[in-house]
Amino acid sequence: MRPYRGALIGCGYASWFQLTAWSRIEGVEIVAVSSRNRERAEQRAAEFNVPAVYTDYRKMLDAESLDFVDIATPPIVHLEMITEAAHRGLHVLCQKPIADTLAELREMIQICDRAGVMFMVNENCRFQPWFRKMKALIDEGAIGRPYYANFTSRWRASLPVANFGARPWFAEMPRFVNYELGVHYLDTLRYLFGEADSLYAQMRRVSPHIAGEDLAMLMLRIGEVTAVVDMSWASIPAWEAEQSVSWGEYRIEGTEGTLHLRKDGLLRLITDEDEERYPFPSNSEVLGYQGAQQHFIDCLRSGVEPETSGRETLKTMELVFGAYDSAAHDRIYYIGRDLERLQ
Amino acid sequence: MRPYRGALIGCGYASWFQLTAWSRIEGVEIVAVSSRNRERAEQRAAEFNVPAVYTDYRKMLDAESLDFVDIATPPIVHLEMITEAAHRGLHVLCQKPIADTLAELREMIQICDRAGVMFMVNENCRFQPWFRKMKALIDEGAIGRPYYANFTSRWRASLPVANFGARPWFAEMPRFVNYELGVHYLDTLRYLFGEADSLYAQMRRVSPHIAGEDLAMLMLRIGEVTAVVDMSWASIPAWEAEQSVSWGEYRIEGTEGTLHLRKDGLLRLITDEDEERYPFPSNSEVLGYQGAQQHFIDCLRSGVEPETSGRETLKTMELVFGAYDSAAHDRIYYIGRDLERLQ
Repeated sequence: MRPYRGALIGCGYASWFQLTAWSRIEGVEIVAVSSRNRERAEQRAAEFNVPAVYTDYRKMLDAESLDFVDIATPPIVHLEMITEAAHRGLHVLCQKPIADTLAELREMIQICDRAGVMFMVNENCRFQPWFRKMKALIDEGAIGRPYYANFTSRWRASLPVANFGARPWFAEMPRFVNYELGVHYLDTLRYLFGEADSLYAQMRRVSPHIAGEDLAMLMLRIGEVTAVVDMSWASIPAWEAEQSVSWGEYRIEGTEGTLHLRKDGLLRLITDEDEERYPFPSNSEVLGYQGAQQHFIDCLRSGVEPETSGRETLKTMELVFGAYDSAAHDRIYYIGRDLERLQ
Repeated sequence: MRPYRGALIGCGYASWFQLTAWSRIEGVEIVAVSSRNRERAEQRAAEFNVPAVYTDYRKMLDAESLDFVDIATPPIVHLEMITEAAHRGLHVLCQKPIADTLAELREMIQICDRAGVMFMVNENCRFQPWFRKMKALIDEGAIGRPYYANFTSRWRASLPVANFGARPWFAEMPRFVNYELGVHYLDTLRYLFGEADSLYAQMRRVSPHIAGEDLAMLMLRIGEVTAVVDMSWASIPAWEAEQSVSWGEYRIEGTEGTLHLRKDGLLRLITDEDEERYPFPSNSEVLGYQGAQQHFIDCLRSGVEPETSGRETLKTMELVFGAYDSAAHDRIYYIGRDLERLQ
């Protein structure tokens, strides 16, 4: 079987994780990278033995013989890049958050459909091994009937000064923690429990040093499950584990057990009789990318629509934008029924 | 100064805590107890050296020379007992939850006002020493501007069988965890942050063995604070501390620090530079009652209206009933504006 040939567009924060993950996946070659910043592109190429470097991704798409592109740029250029790739018959894997509006995402889907190429959003959270494990445990009945989920993230980053490390643009994002992180959690809740009925959200901009919200608190109704997405990038975390493996704490409660993933990467399955422990290693972030990318390749091979196809991601983005609608107007957002509000 | 003479009505679960607390308060004598169950009344009297025992509380109120009554019975008989006490000119301290409707509570307030007696609801939660300490720390600016509060309680009691220990009637309560426990947390949030603007709630009856809800998840907007009240008496707790001092975990986040009370009674004040620790002892429940009862006596002495007077408790009960309204109709409850819905 000949390897799939891919090119990476964008050599910023996420590219290291994506290239590391690609290096672990059988049957794939990353044959070129591009970035408007040549130095960065050359650095990534050197790190990962990528043979070709471009500063104009269009020239890369024309010059290289490719099967797919992996887009790791900000949302504002996604539509343009997806269009260029699809018109050349290339399959598309593209970073989250995918688009600033549902209309834009629908356009991407249509372009890829018409070109007959696969379009998957690179959603690494649901592919993180602990969420895969939790899903398997839920499906085999380990916690009985689940009725409650809580995803809590705390990161002291917007206060007392804005300090986002390798992602300084976070300070400028008009929609911030729910758009950047909430999209992960909302997609993962869909993976675990299916489609939501409604959501209610409160958001606050706590720090004066940023443009968007750094506190977002969402409550969803997902059939029999009440789900809480509780995010703050302003707050000092109360958890005592120093090591950050999982970016937060996650709890899923069912009639016969509780699943608890601690920030240090230990997943606990607690029942009335017993506790099982499943530790996860600290290189977690790469494992999420790896899972997503492996799935993309598997879907290219099988022709099956990816779990996080553009079409599926429409449902996730309705939740993301629905949360902003709820918070802005202080009203409950009903999935599907309130869709016209988001147009 | 002659001691205040009080009588206790009701010798069930709470009476042990109340009598223990009274025994620690200067200037008070509990001179009689009553219960329809003579054996229980005699047991409590013997334990706490109370001189007189009655099975008919009216006879006790007629026979004894009293300043106040302490009512520790279920809500259904509160109005009758408060009326009998007020008509005899006795001040009233009465257990929470105080009443099944706001109309009933208004009637109690009116009766006590007309009789010129003090009417305080025995709300021990806000008087627990850690909430007093948290309030003091917030007021002195230790965490900057608070913007988030989370009160989480987990107790595995309605599943896999209903096992409520000394309070088997919990299984029959048509309104359960929010009415019995939520009232504490909502009153304490009022104590810490003032009056709420709105609330949204989801509730679920998870266990088939009970009548009311055993999961209640509330999100409040209290001015600049987003507050979460997250209660389940069905779920297996994820916390690892075995010792239950505080009945739950409590977090308050501000621009300059986080307050975290762990289930084992350790209060942590975490700032960017440092962590202060304030441990609280395991006899906490009595300390809450003791604080409430001391406040009642202080108010009798000073003539100042108690923090948890009937009138103040109207505001707490609006939140309690507003949460049921929100959950039942899946709508946001706006404090004050939606009051007519609760009538």
